[in-house]
Parts: sequence; structure tokens; C-alpha cells
Amino acid sequence: MTVPTVRTRLAAEDRRRQLIGIGLRLLVNRPIHELAIDEVAAEAGISRGLLFHYFPTKREYYIAVVRAAGNRLLLHARAPDEGTTTERVRGIVDGFVQFIQRRRGNYVALVRAGAGGDERVLEVFSSIRARIADRVIDAMGTTEPTPQLRLVVRGWLAMAEEIAVEATPDVMQVDGIVDMLVDNLNKTVQQVAGWNEGGPQFVYTPPRD
Amino acid sequence: MTVPTVRTRLAAEDRRRQLIGIGLRLLVNRPIHELAIDEVAAEAGISRGLLFHYFPTKREYYIAVVRAAGNRLLLHARAPDEGTTTERVRGIVDGFVQFIQRRRGNYVALVRAGAGGDERVLEVFSSIRARIADRVIDAMGTTEPTPQLRLVVRGWLAMAEEIAVEATPDVMQVDGIVDMLVDNLNKTVQQVAGWNEGGPQFVYTPPRD
Repeated sequence: MTVPTVRTRLAAEDRRRQLIGIGLRLLVNRPIHELAIDEVAAEAGISRGLLFHYFPTKREYYIAVVRAAGNRLLLHARAPDEGTTTERVRGIVDGFVQFIQRRRGNYVALVRAGAGGDERVLEVFSSIRARIADRVIDAMGTTEPTPQLRLVVRGWLAMAEEIAVEATPDVMQVDGIVDMLVDNLNKTVQQVAGWNEGGPQFVYTPPRD
Repeated sequence: MTVPTVRTRLAAEDRRRQLIGIGLRLLVNRPIHELAIDEVAAEAGISRGLLFHYFPTKREYYIAVVRAAGNRLLLHARAPDEGTTTERVRGIVDGFVQFIQRRRGNYVALVRAGAGGDERVLEVFSSIRARIADRVIDAMGTTEPTPQLRLVVRGWLAMAEEIAVEATPDVMQVDGIVDMLVDNLNKTVQQVAGWNEGGPQFVYTPPRD
């Protein structure tokens, strides 16, 4: 007589979320090619076959994990609904920097190192960066951004990411990073505005005294 | 009677260089995990065994290819020996931007997407970025950079990289990109200097009239 194995039954959405959560955790310490799908299934207490029911290939699973990491970042890098342009820009930058600083290992592993030349994985994070850049442009009060403005905001966001990843608290703390970045964005945008008559209206006033 | 195969005999250094050159070309269109070592050996007209004599594992080969890409970048992103601080900084930025713009596909494939979570590959490019940041700090005439200055120059370099990769000539041309970046570096550095008494001496004067 076999003892029936007790397995938790989860609704499909919950199961997907559970599997993605396991990936977010395991992929901090290991590149994707070293991660065994069997191990993910075992952690979730399900069969390999059931995992492949939710994610038909290892690559699909990986893309879902990267997308989940990106969506978490999008949840944090948001402007408050109300406020001046400066307050709204600060809200996005503050959420962005804090998110990366808290989950540095995860961020570096999944976003920076994780693509492994996979076009779709690159595409996922490229589109998330583009959405954050759009939010910044929107928070600045710019409704018709020029291609130059889009380009420099994208560049500035890369700076924000690098500094958020690299800064340790003894060198620069979150508030200092955010001040620096918002100030830098303002100067960069003024510069581009100088190239185009009637450029963006974003005028940043430093919050200090 | 077999016809002897004619194989070109190359000195060890030339052979290594040839194999790396093949990798630089093939890895533009394919991620490393899709590249077969047999194919590289066949292109070079040598046996798989001889390739592994020069690069004991596929990973070693890949790291050598990434390092070669980085060294080419270092060759271009150089300050002229003589000149004002601004001219020297411009020289580095100009070489950096032009190099990336000309080899965009290669750069994206090897540097941005290529790590695939491999720590040593990440390390190779991290150290190349650090060397370029050091050159910029040196060209600015700063002999004792603060950790804050190092951090913001690193961030600014990430911006430079992003803009060099993303800019198309209809949006911003090389000269415009370089002007923008040098101006941005100057403002960023002034800002950090404001936080530390006796900060860096780099004062950038815009070259326009």
C-alpha cells in the first residue's frame, strides 16, 4: 500500500507566481545555464512535467522571471499622482534607486548579467527601461518629447542605474544619490532644450533650503 | 594515395589572434552558448584539438574574445598626450563614442548581453570600464579622486555608453554627443566638488565660440 503524497494544490496563477518567486531567489547566486529546472520543480513540490505545463521551455521560464523582476521595479519607480514636476520626478528616481539598492544582487544577476545574448531577455529589460524613461518625461510635464530628449533621458537612466548599483552607503546615501540625479537630469534637459526652441518645460529647483 | 592537406602554419601569437578575430565576428550574430567550437576551428582551418591547445575550455576562449573587444576599446578611448584638460577629456570621450558607434552590434553582443551571468566575463568588462574612468579622472587633472568622484564618473560613463549605443545619426551625431557628454561631465563634477572642499580642478569651458 502506498502512502499518498500530500501536495499543495494551487490555483494556476498562484503556482506561476510561486515558480517565478523561486527563480528570483535561485538566480541571484547562479547564472541561468547552471539552474536545473528539476531543482525549481522540487522546491515547488511539483513534477518537472507540471512545471513545463506552466512554462513550456526553460527559456520561457527565464523570461518570465526577468519580466517579474522588471515589473517589481516598475511598481517602485513611480511618480506620486499629485505634486510639482520636481516632486514627481523625485518620486520616480527615489523608488528606482531604493529598489536597486535593496536588491542589488538580484538586479545585477537578472538584469545586467542575465541576458546571455538572448534577444528576448534583452528586449524585456529594454522595454522596462523605456517605460521608466517615459514616466520621467511625463513627470517633467513634457507632452511631446523630441528624439534628443528621449535619448538623453535614456542615457541619464543608465547613469542612475550604474550609480544605484555601485554606491555603498559610506560613499553616497540614497538621498544624496537622488539629489544628484535629479539635479543632473535638470541640467541635461536644459542643455537639450537649448538645442530646440520651445523645449521641455521641466525646471528643477534644488530642494535644499 | 592521400593528398596532403595544406594548412597554414602560424606562430602561436598569430594563431591566438586569428581565433579571437573569428570569435569577434561570429559572436555578433549569436550568443556564446550557440557558438560551436568546432565551427571556430573549421574556420581557422585547424583541428578542435589544436584550438583547445590555445584555449583549454570554451569559457576561456570566450573570455579571451571579450577581453580582446575591451582592449580594442581601450586603444581608442585615449587622451592625447598634450593638451588642456578639456582637450584631453574630449579625446577620450570622442574615441569611446566613435568606437561604440562603429561596432554597435559587436559591442552590444559582447559587452552588454554577453556575460550570461559569468562572473569572470563581467569582471573583464568591469575592469575595462574602471580603466576608462581612471583615464577620465586623470585627464581632468585630478590626482586624488574622492570615492564620490569615482562613483559619479562611473555613472557618467554608463550614460556615455548608453547614448553611444542608442544614438542614430538622425537624432544626434558624434560631435553633438561628445559636446553633450563633456558638458555633462563638467556639471556633474562641479556638483561633487561642491560637496567636498578643495574638490577636483577640472573646469570645462565649452568649445563653442
